[in-house]
Amino acid sequence: MEADKIPSLPGAADIAAAAARLAPYTVTTPLLFSSVADARLGFRLLIKAESLQRTGSFKFRGAMNALLSLDDETRKRGVVAYSSGNHAQGVAAAAQLLGVPAVIVMPADAPAIKTANTKAYGAEIVAYDRFTESREKIAEGIASTRGATLIPPFDDARVIAGQGTSGLELVRQAQAMGLPLDAVLAPCSGGGLVSGVALAVKSLSPDTAVYSAEPTTLDDMRRSLATGQRQANDPAARSICDSLLATSPGVLPFAIARLLLAGGLIAGDDETRRAMAVAFADYKLVLEPGGAVALAAALAMKESWRGKTVAVVASGGNVDREVFTEALARAAG
Amino acid sequence: MEADKIPSLPGAADIAAAAARLAPYTVTTPLLFSSVADARLGFRLLIKAESLQRTGSFKFRGAMNALLSLDDETRKRGVVAYSSGNHAQGVAAAAQLLGVPAVIVMPADAPAIKTANTKAYGAEIVAYDRFTESREKIAEGIASTRGATLIPPFDDARVIAGQGTSGLELVRQAQAMGLPLDAVLAPCSGGGLVSGVALAVKSLSPDTAVYSAEPTTLDDMRRSLATGQRQANDPAARSICDSLLATSPGVLPFAIARLLLAGGLIAGDDETRRAMAVAFADYKLVLEPGGAVALAAALAMKESWRGKTVAVVASGGNVDREVFTEALARAAG
Repeated sequence: MEADKIPSLPGAADIAAAAARLAPYTVTTPLLFSSVADARLGFRLLIKAESLQRTGSFKFRGAMNALLSLDDETRKRGVVAYSSGNHAQGVAAAAQLLGVPAVIVMPADAPAIKTANTKAYGAEIVAYDRFTESREKIAEGIASTRGATLIPPFDDARVIAGQGTSGLELVRQAQAMGLPLDAVLAPCSGGGLVSGVALAVKSLSPDTAVYSAEPTTLDDMRRSLATGQRQANDPAARSICDSLLATSPGVLPFAIARLLLAGGLIAGDDETRRAMAVAFADYKLVLEPGGAVALAAALAMKESWRGKTVAVVASGGNVDREVFTEALARAAG
Repeated sequence: MEADKIPSLPGAADIAAAAARLAPYTVTTPLLFSSVADARLGFRLLIKAESLQRTGSFKFRGAMNALLSLDDETRKRGVVAYSSGNHAQGVAAAAQLLGVPAVIVMPADAPAIKTANTKAYGAEIVAYDRFTESREKIAEGIASTRGATLIPPFDDARVIAGQGTSGLELVRQAQAMGLPLDAVLAPCSGGGLVSGVALAVKSLSPDTAVYSAEPTTLDDMRRSLATGQRQANDPAARSICDSLLATSPGVLPFAIARLLLAGGLIAGDDETRRAMAVAFADYKLVLEPGGAVALAAALAMKESWRGKTVAVVASGGNVDREVFTEALARAAG
């Protein structure tokens, strides 16, 4: 699929429609602040706590919007998704709420909490080896065999519009607090979240700069924005951010991102661990590594933000105890 | 002071007034749910996340309401408070917001995060030994020397009304979710929170049972309710709940509690650690031990709640990393 053949780029109206559709099901997550952290950092930092969303991440918004958009006949035949964990839980929970069968293709080495919760939401799990097998092909095979609908993790207008509702809430909450936003940062893997957030933010607050945030080793969106072409990550690259493993930006997300993003920011694994520690101590939030990468990128840039107001999306909190406590211990040095 | 000489018991109207007064300053904390936890527990569990309140605990609500109730002349002369940490931060932050000098009398062995944050909010700290010195006398001495106003941690109508605004939000949020509440549990030390919550809950939802929750070793409210007289804790009693160290229920809180509470519940330290682990894994919340005691008491009673809807106030999240990670490790067995 080429960028000039994109059938339907979602817009701000799709996000408003998704927000209305999702209202009975989603948590309006708080936009948190800490005057102690602000004084220490030298800028005002707001955290949109999507870790508190149903299923522990923003992914529920997109999955639920996609499922609510299916007609009854299609929905009845079930849904299929592939995911390292958060989209899995989002689709499984959405399917459970609507009484729809769900099959989720998950890496065999996904965090235990993500696999356990996906099962708890009633989904059937198919495991694969993420270094040797194609999750897309496995999922497409299941979809065609069963007549089920594939719910893509990010390259889908309904999913992007759903994820974007977090950005809509964020801007309205900042406005209610009387705080004009200089910048908004969102974690980026395939780009569904950051592109949806950018659509929402730019429609309501055009002067706010929106940035993607990625692990340093998985900076495909940053390089894609810099070159104007979708770039891929080195398949051998590793990161503690297990929820940000897409190999390149999605076609739709990148088409939106290149129009609306101010640039791509990055954070190393140690910076992400320190961000998890800041979220713990100053905001009382449990963040998974991938959920803390925008916070990490914002903290790394603190000299540039002096006196400004910056909001970050803390996109998820599904982290095993051992990973969390080790990150806090390493951050403490 | 005897119960029959109580000058002004706060009522539901005081809580409504406090809510209006506090609205520009407080966070409307979310009422969180987890369908995964509900399925495992056999009852619907809602968590009012006051750990996400400004200063990391509900205490800010009462402190700010008390400070806003002072006239300008009185306020200018400053405020004094004694606290093991959360009221300290609440008063310090409220004073800083209003440009008022604050002195806080804190135990020398208070958690490092609480002492550091109280300083960060601009307060002057006076340390004392909580096993040999009287914090009340030290605070009263400072108040009379400086002409400052003592802001009591719980035995004060303005403080109780302020804390009660968390209960008002809780009931309204549950109503908006279409969930009638069978029971509400709130942690109890001096009783300011649970009495304020009871006033709010009983005025809006009279059929909801409200319970105090205490560490097993510090069950003064439970025994006070059972005997109809204010009881004290053994001064030698210990608990991991460093924020629940009051030696007996306050006069005003107990006067309200004996009228409105259905009873007093308890939880042992290991149950509290397990509750912290549940809050971490299922709700992505960082809770301090004292903030998790109502959740612990609810989990301990799960057989009694089968099929019911129970809300707990998670009252604070100011916990040092070592205490938090050790609690999670011990809970995991």
